[in-house]
Amino acid sequence: IIYVVTPTFARPHQRAELTRLSQTLLLVPSLHWILVEDSAERTAAVAELLAQSDLPYTHLNVQTPLAMKLKDSDPNWLKPRGVEQRNEALRWLREHRSPGDRGVVYFADDDNTYSVKIFQEMRYTQKVSVWPVGLVGGLRYEAPLVDNGKVIGFHTAWKTHRPFPIDMAGFAVSLSLLLTHPNARFDPDAERGFLESSLLGQLVTLRELEPRADNCTKVWVWHTRTEKPKLKQEDMLEKQGRGSNPKIFV
Amino acid sequence: IIYVVTPTFARPHQRAELTRLSQTLLLVPSLHWILVEDSAERTAAVAELLAQSDLPYTHLNVQTPLAMKLKDSDPNWLKPRGVEQRNEALRWLREHRSPGDRGVVYFADDDNTYSVKIFQEMRYTQKVSVWPVGLVGGLRYEAPLVDNGKVIGFHTAWKTHRPFPIDMAGFAVSLSLLLTHPNARFDPDAERGFLESSLLGQLVTLRELEPRADNCTKVWVWHTRTEKPKLKQEDMLEKQGRGSNPKIFV
Ligand SMILES: O=c1ccn([C@@H]2O[C@H](COP(=O)(O)OP(=O)(O)O)[C@@H](O)[C@H]2O)c(=O)[nH]1
Ligand SMILES: O=c1ccn([C@@H]2O[C@H](COP(=O)(O)OP(=O)(O)O)[C@@H](O)[C@H]2O)c(=O)[nH]1
Ligand SMILES: [Mn+2]
Ligand SMILES: [Mn+2]
Repeated sequence: IIYVVTPTFARPHQRAELTRLSQTLLLVPSLHWILVEDSAERTAAVAELLAQSDLPYTHLNVQTPLAMKLKDSDPNWLKPRGVEQRNEALRWLREHRSPGDRGVVYFADDDNTYSVKIFQEMRYTQKVSVWPVGLVGGLRYEAPLVDNGKVIGFHTAWKTHRPFPIDMAGFAVSLSLLLTHPNARFDPDAERGFLESSLLGQLVTLRELEPRADNCTKVWVWHTRTEKPKLKQEDMLEKQGRGSNPKIFV
Repeated sequence: IIYVVTPTFARPHQRAELTRLSQTLLLVPSLHWILVEDSAERTAAVAELLAQSDLPYTHLNVQTPLAMKLKDSDPNWLKPRGVEQRNEALRWLREHRSPGDRGVVYFADDDNTYSVKIFQEMRYTQKVSVWPVGLVGGLRYEAPLVDNGKVIGFHTAWKTHRPFPIDMAGFAVSLSLLLTHPNARFDPDAERGFLESSLLGQLVTLRELEPRADNCTKVWVWHTRTEKPKLKQEDMLEKQGRGSNPKIFV
């Protein structure tokens, strides 16, 4: 089983993002979606989307502490995003799964683009498997460099001193490795760019990484971001009391 | 059969966009994808993606005339986008299909978000069916207003004098209607916002529109846009002759 862990938060295009991600996941056999809302309560909108998705899922929530939360005016890299949510999923897995259970855990943000091929690659992870990620770190792609079937370094150009210069979308971890390291988690206080390393450093060494996607030569996942929709006319109509029907979910 | 017509053009995230769109279309039965590149030649990258997609498809190309083409520095609304490509698909349909063939034609840009539900809605189009589109026209959604099963107006707040204030993603046309109106096409010289009207005005009156998606109360397609990826580090490395491997497709 692939456990796909997705942090998500309310915004005008949330339902669009979750719809297209859920439809991609539908094409993947033997998958369990752990969707973790960044909110004080699980929302009805997300619950309904999950119920209609035809996917096996678990619906969790945990709110990012206010001090750590991005403001609308902040540049989006100022604070880490989705950290408490991913840790909540780890907590849930440790509570509800036992060492005998097989599986692999993948952290899939709600706005990236996933080829179904990447899920085939991660399925047979022993400890941690890795592969290239497109459109990240200011590059066409970041990727592990492979020699003789082993990772010997990384193609990266941003904070190259990161222990594991791998985007969240570029690795998967076996469930048993997470269960045998019960304290391994993402560090919410990690320096920018060091979040992935903060987990991986507790689990694995560089030499143990398992390169996938044709020895890390294929890009099957992309770090896409969706533009914030402009809602100028909506604000205008709302001031006149004629805004869009709030009963119509967008 | 649903003929999905998609204009597309080369850019860093093109393969990501086409991958996730093709995966959505895989979930729709009885569909034929007409992908039209805005380019002088059909490219190998797109041909390969189509060949691997498991979809029935037709691969076309036509280059937007230089005078009509957006420059990288232009705001994206300055010129119409995808017009020649959609017209090329109409030409192909008229050449390769005959009045007896059943089908419906939908113009699906490569960056929008589509719920599979919207394809079910358009399948039984008599002339032109219509439905709401999310995150467009500065509103949460634009939608036809329906009374007694008939379209009687529109919820819109941008250029409200448009004859058909409907986004490209908000309607589908029956194939036979297009074949019995052999000259109907999109007008590349239409004023901004009037492109959809330039086709629909030749095919249908407002009273003939067929409202779908629960009398136009459900949003099952969203006018999302993807951020241009930042490639600062790539440019830097390239200047040093150490750019990403050009043989790795992104
Ligand atoms: O306040 C926030 C901001 C983001 N996220 C989620 O955290 C993940 C990463 O955020 P984002 O995609 O904005 O980060 P980036 O694209 O910059 O890596 C995504 O799944 C978001 O939905 C969240 O839960 N709370
Ligand atoms: O020079 C261009 C720009 C855009 N497009 C395509 O035309 C459609 C509409 O373009 P875009 O999504 O940029 O328009 P908007 O989001 O502003 O409606 C998309 O399928 C694009 O891939 C194109 O073929 N050539
Ligand atoms: Mn993201
Ligand atoms: Mn678009």
